[in-house]
Amino acid sequence: MNARTILERTQRGLPLAADLHDFIAEHVAGRIPDYQMAAWLMAVWFRGLDRDATVALVRAMMESGRVLHLDDIPGPKVDKHSTGGIGDKISLPLAGVAAACGLCVPMLSGRGLGHTGGTLDKLESIPGYRTRFDEAAFRHTLSEVGASIVGQSDDLVPADRSLYALRDVTATVDCVPLIVASILSKKFAAGCEAVVMDVKVGSGAFMRDAAAAECLARELVEVGRAFGRRVTVVFTRMDEPLGVAVGNAVEVVEAVDLLRGGGPEEVRRITCVLAGEMLRLGGLVADAPAGEAAAAAALGSGAALGRFDAMVRAHGGRLDLDRADCGLQIAPVAAVVHAPRTAWLAAVDGTAVGFAVVDLGGGRARKEDAVDPSVGLRWRARIGTQVEAGAPIVEVLAPPGRDVRAVVARLQAAVTWSETRIEASPWVLGRMVE
Amino acid sequence: MNARTILERTQRGLPLAADLHDFIAEHVAGRIPDYQMAAWLMAVWFRGLDRDATVALVRAMMESGRVLHLDDIPGPKVDKHSTGGIGDKISLPLAGVAAACGLCVPMLSGRGLGHTGGTLDKLESIPGYRTRFDEAAFRHTLSEVGASIVGQSDDLVPADRSLYALRDVTATVDCVPLIVASILSKKFAAGCEAVVMDVKVGSGAFMRDAAAAECLARELVEVGRAFGRRVTVVFTRMDEPLGVAVGNAVEVVEAVDLLRGGGPEEVRRITCVLAGEMLRLGGLVADAPAGEAAAAAALGSGAALGRFDAMVRAHGGRLDLDRADCGLQIAPVAAVVHAPRTAWLAAVDGTAVGFAVVDLGGGRARKEDAVDPSVGLRWRARIGTQVEAGAPIVEVLAPPGRDVRAVVARLQAAVTWSETRIEASPWVLGRMVE
Repeated sequence: MNARTILERTQRGLPLAADLHDFIAEHVAGRIPDYQMAAWLMAVWFRGLDRDATVALVRAMMESGRVLHLDDIPGPKVDKHSTGGIGDKISLPLAGVAAACGLCVPMLSGRGLGHTGGTLDKLESIPGYRTRFDEAAFRHTLSEVGASIVGQSDDLVPADRSLYALRDVTATVDCVPLIVASILSKKFAAGCEAVVMDVKVGSGAFMRDAAAAECLARELVEVGRAFGRRVTVVFTRMDEPLGVAVGNAVEVVEAVDLLRGGGPEEVRRITCVLAGEMLRLGGLVADAPAGEAAAAAALGSGAALGRFDAMVRAHGGRLDLDRADCGLQIAPVAAVVHAPRTAWLAAVDGTAVGFAVVDLGGGRARKEDAVDPSVGLRWRARIGTQVEAGAPIVEVLAPPGRDVRAVVARLQAAVTWSETRIEASPWVLGRMVE
Repeated sequence: MNARTILERTQRGLPLAADLHDFIAEHVAGRIPDYQMAAWLMAVWFRGLDRDATVALVRAMMESGRVLHLDDIPGPKVDKHSTGGIGDKISLPLAGVAAACGLCVPMLSGRGLGHTGGTLDKLESIPGYRTRFDEAAFRHTLSEVGASIVGQSDDLVPADRSLYALRDVTATVDCVPLIVASILSKKFAAGCEAVVMDVKVGSGAFMRDAAAAECLARELVEVGRAFGRRVTVVFTRMDEPLGVAVGNAVEVVEAVDLLRGGGPEEVRRITCVLAGEMLRLGGLVADAPAGEAAAAAALGSGAALGRFDAMVRAHGGRLDLDRADCGLQIAPVAAVVHAPRTAWLAAVDGTAVGFAVVDLGGGRARKEDAVDPSVGLRWRARIGTQVEAGAPIVEVLAPPGRDVRAVVARLQAAVTWSETRIEASPWVLGRMVE
């Protein structure tokens, strides 16, 4: 295995599957330098990888570190992964719902960087919640509660950490085979038997159009099949914040609201659809509608809330479920953005909204930045609704005395208005089943 | 200037010219790491660069270090550059011829690596010849002799050293805009007003076919024009060793043979053609044929030999022109490769011949290897000639007692024979004038 030969074969679109395992292993061992890997990532960005090579890359990355085997833990091991969007707190209620319905959800999550939020940051707004991965504790929580959401272990898929860091600085993030390998290697290394993918589509999503989303979905499903693991894709809309809350503690509260039987309708809908697919993949229901009904029942009965609360406790966290704010620190309303005129809300620039939260201190511009869990937004308007002049669109949550004028200006600029009626697309756009 | 933005613009084929100066300067200053530059080189390999960007890259690389101004030195400053081939010692007699005809030849040359030889290695087979660049000595030799062949200075075009090392390990050497930038930035930084390019075409050359060579030539000529410097290309054949001698000291002796009025006919022909173009570009003759005639006269009169000898002395070297071997150490014939049957010589694998010399110790497998100047080959057969069974094709020159069986086998395998008549192409295949 010679790195330059692999580069040449990639440039020419020749088969690579046989060599990728050594290529990745040698890189992780420090014997293939970053500059050769960076050049390879760019070659893949241009030339792509065939299915066999993508499968080989997933396996090589998965086997670059520890691989968890969860066969001794009860329940089908099914996880969900989202390609990311503004206000996407679905993982939180979904973990409770899925566990309540009998699934085992081994969820290794990430932190926010740039305009996207991170599930770990949200959970860390709960006092005491420990996100550090510890295999014994992880297995114990999965056995006892049925769900555990913690951070990536350093020794799980080390290849992804290195490749992802290089992709980030070499403009090779938007590349289907590399995305597929990054997602599936981590899910499979964490012991998942099946995965439901929430592929976000729209202006606030990584995949801006349906064709690109479909292409990614096809690769996820087919590569999963090559591993004998079922992958189902649900396409959901991401052209405005999902739900009302955007931030960290506020999103946890919205998740709990959902588990308490309230919360925004679209958050409930997407949670039930994803849970329905997870239950179907896990073999616990006959079909997706039956799974959705089971999920709705778990939300209605309080079983999902109980399971989520148990998971939080298992990680050392404490929610005060008797209080509307769950006992979390949430900053007061520092400013309200109003509709400039009576018009239909036509579009929201999700990236701008995400960076507004970063500006408030609720996200990270750089990896080493600390996050303020108390800040955030409450998004009060929806695409396709006619908003009266002066009506509130967004509430900005920030500590007293903070100058939020720049954030307000950013949010005002993030909204596009229409004088004519706008119809919003449905939140669930479609599915691709394995 | 943000490196990732430049990568994205390169991926999409957007204009880059305005940003390349900072990009290259920041890289040389260590603020853009190798992995981003490696990814950029791969992006350029796939997407190419437009003419403006190539011009900007040449300028950025040229200005990454010291730029020589030779206006105070008499004579038009015209250099020659070859894309490299087996047995290509043309620079040596050409420097003497061009200087004898009134040109100033500021020639900064390289060492051999892999299967290609290097002019500096050849000159260092002359006892005492100093190849280290020293600006004062360089200017003095150019003023007094009219030609100086020395190594690259560390502070001339530092960007090329870094980029070339990265291209070598990322399979991005074969990329026209990067080749053009590497060649012209060095020539222009060394103070050349015009350049004649010897673009080798054929199985033993970097450019295997005429179309690729034409494409490279077009860029060289047009980018030169954008700098207001004239570049002319001569296409020459490289599907077998050029001349008889292949190695270091043996090539110096063949160069001196030419300057003494002898030497192989094709070496003389190519030397005169390149010198003719150099004289034309320098404005010292009306047209190329007049330049060729002047070059032939300088060879016939001994003027070119005198100038070459003076250049060698100016660099501390000493040739004994009364002796056939010029007083250089040349290894004896250790083996002779014979024709296996009576047949036409159809093709020679130049890469294999080059590596045979490396195996003998006359070249480098790695940069830090030492070179034995005394070893080499004498190539006795020519494509298009019918060779009798058992006739000598190659003599292997190596120190007594050296086991050269592997080299002999390599050389036998490097030759393709034909039972039917083969016509060799002419050595000079064509020209592209500015």
